[in-house]
Amino acid sequence: MITPDGALTPPEPTGFDLADPEFRAAVVDLLGGLAYGELRAFSQLAADAELAPSLAQRSELAFLAEQEIGHYRLLADRLRSLGVEPEQAMQPFVAAIDAFHERTRPTGWLEGLVKAYVGEGIAQDFYREVAAYVDPDTRDLVIRVLDDSGRADFVVTAVRDAMAADPRVAGRLALWGRRLVGEALSQAQHVAVERDALTALLIGVPGRPAADLAELGRMFVRLTDEHTRRMERLGLTP
Amino acid sequence: MITPDGALTPPEPTGFDLADPEFRAAVVDLLGGLAYGELRAFSQLAADAELAPSLAQRSELAFLAEQEIGHYRLLADRLRSLGVEPEQAMQPFVAAIDAFHERTRPTGWLEGLVKAYVGEGIAQDFYREVAAYVDPDTRDLVIRVLDDSGRADFVVTAVRDAMAADPRVAGRLALWGRRLVGEALSQAQHVAVERDALTALLIGVPGRPAADLAELGRMFVRLTDEHTRRMERLGLTP
Repeated sequence: MITPDGALTPPEPTGFDLADPEFRAAVVDLLGGLAYGELRAFSQLAADAELAPSLAQRSELAFLAEQEIGHYRLLADRLRSLGVEPEQAMQPFVAAIDAFHERTRPTGWLEGLVKAYVGEGIAQDFYREVAAYVDPDTRDLVIRVLDDSGRADFVVTAVRDAMAADPRVAGRLALWGRRLVGEALSQAQHVAVERDALTALLIGVPGRPAADLAELGRMFVRLTDEHTRRMERLGLTP
Repeated sequence: MITPDGALTPPEPTGFDLADPEFRAAVVDLLGGLAYGELRAFSQLAADAELAPSLAQRSELAFLAEQEIGHYRLLADRLRSLGVEPEQAMQPFVAAIDAFHERTRPTGWLEGLVKAYVGEGIAQDFYREVAAYVDPDTRDLVIRVLDDSGRADFVVTAVRDAMAADPRVAGRLALWGRRLVGEALSQAQHVAVERDALTALLIGVPGRPAADLAELGRMFVRLTDEHTRRMERLGLTP
C-alpha cells in the first residue's frame, strides 16, 4: 500500500479479523484480563498508599493508582466499542487476579513498592508480548495502556534509599520479588488452561500468525530477562 | 477597570493580599486542608470500591476516587506555586481529617456511598463558603475542585435502588447520615480552635472583607439546608 506521502507500508497480516468469533473472543479476553488487572492494581496501589511513611510518598502512590484507573477507562471504552460490557469481559479473570493479590498482600510499604514495580512489570510485559498477535488498533491501545513512564523512577529511588538506610531489608525484598513472579506464573497457567481463545492467540490457529514453539521459548526468555533487569535496578538479587 | 473589549469589571475587593503573611497563611490553610481532604477521600473511595456488589459499581467508585486525586494534584500545584510544599500545608489537618474517617468507617457498600455523598457534600459546601473570603485565583481553583458534577446521579440511583429492594435499610442509613454530619462538625470545631488564620478568614480582621455574625448564621443555615436536600435526594429522613 502506498500512503499519500509516498511511503510504502507493509501489508496488513492476514487473520486479524474481528468478525472471526474466535479471534474476537481472544481480543475480548486480552482486553478484559488487562482491564480487571488495572482495576485490581488500582485498589492495591490505593491501599498501599496508606502505608506510605510520608504524605509526599502517599501522594506519589496515589498518582500511580490514578494512572491505572485511567488505563482501565480506555480498556473499558474499547470493550464497549466492540459491543461487550466490560464487566462481562473481566469476569473470567477475577478469580485468578484476585488469587494473585490475595497471595501477595504486601505487609508493608516496601513490599508494596516492589510489588508495584516487579509484579506489575512482569504482567505488563506479558500483555505486551500477547499484543503482538492482535489487530493493530487493539495492539496500539494495549501498548499505550502499558506505558509506565515515570513509575520507575519514584519506586527505584524509594527502595534503594530504604536499603541504604537498612541493608538487611535487601534479602527479604529479594525473596519477595521471587515470590511475586512465582505467584504470577502460577495464576497465568490457570488462565491459560481455562481460556482457549486467548491461548490460541499465542500458539496459533490455521490462517493466523502466531508464535511457534521456538518463539514462545524466546518470549519466556525475554520476560525473565526483563524481570531480572527490574530486580537489579531496585538493587535486589534476582 | 476597562478590559480590552470595553467591558467594565468590578474593582478588586481590598484585603486579598497574598503578601500579607496572615492572609497568606489562611489561604495556605484552606488549600492544605482541602488537599489532605481530597487525598484521604481518595483512599476512602478506593477502599469502598472493593465493597461494591458488582464490577460496574466498583469501577464507578474508582472513577470518583480518580476525580479526588485529580483535584489533589491541582491543589498541590497551587500550593507549590505559592512556595509551600503540599505536605507542610496538609500536616495541620491530618489529625482532624483522619479522626473523622476513623470514626466514620463504613461497614458496608451503602454506608460508603452515603458517606461519599453526604459527608463529602457538607465538607465541600463548607470549603465553598470559605472560598468567598479569599482572592479570586484561589477561589476559582477551589470552586473548580469542588465541582462534583456526575457524582450525584450514580450514588443517588444506587442508594434508592437498595432501599427499594429492602426498605429496612432506610432507617439505618438515615442515622448514619446524621452521624456523619455530627462527626464532621466536631472535627471542624477542632480545626477552628487550632487554626487562627483560617478562622480569621471567616470572622474577619480589620481591612479585609469577612462575614459578620449574621452572615455566619446564614452560612450555617445554608450548610444545613444543603445537607437536608442531599438526604432527601437519597430518600433518607434528614
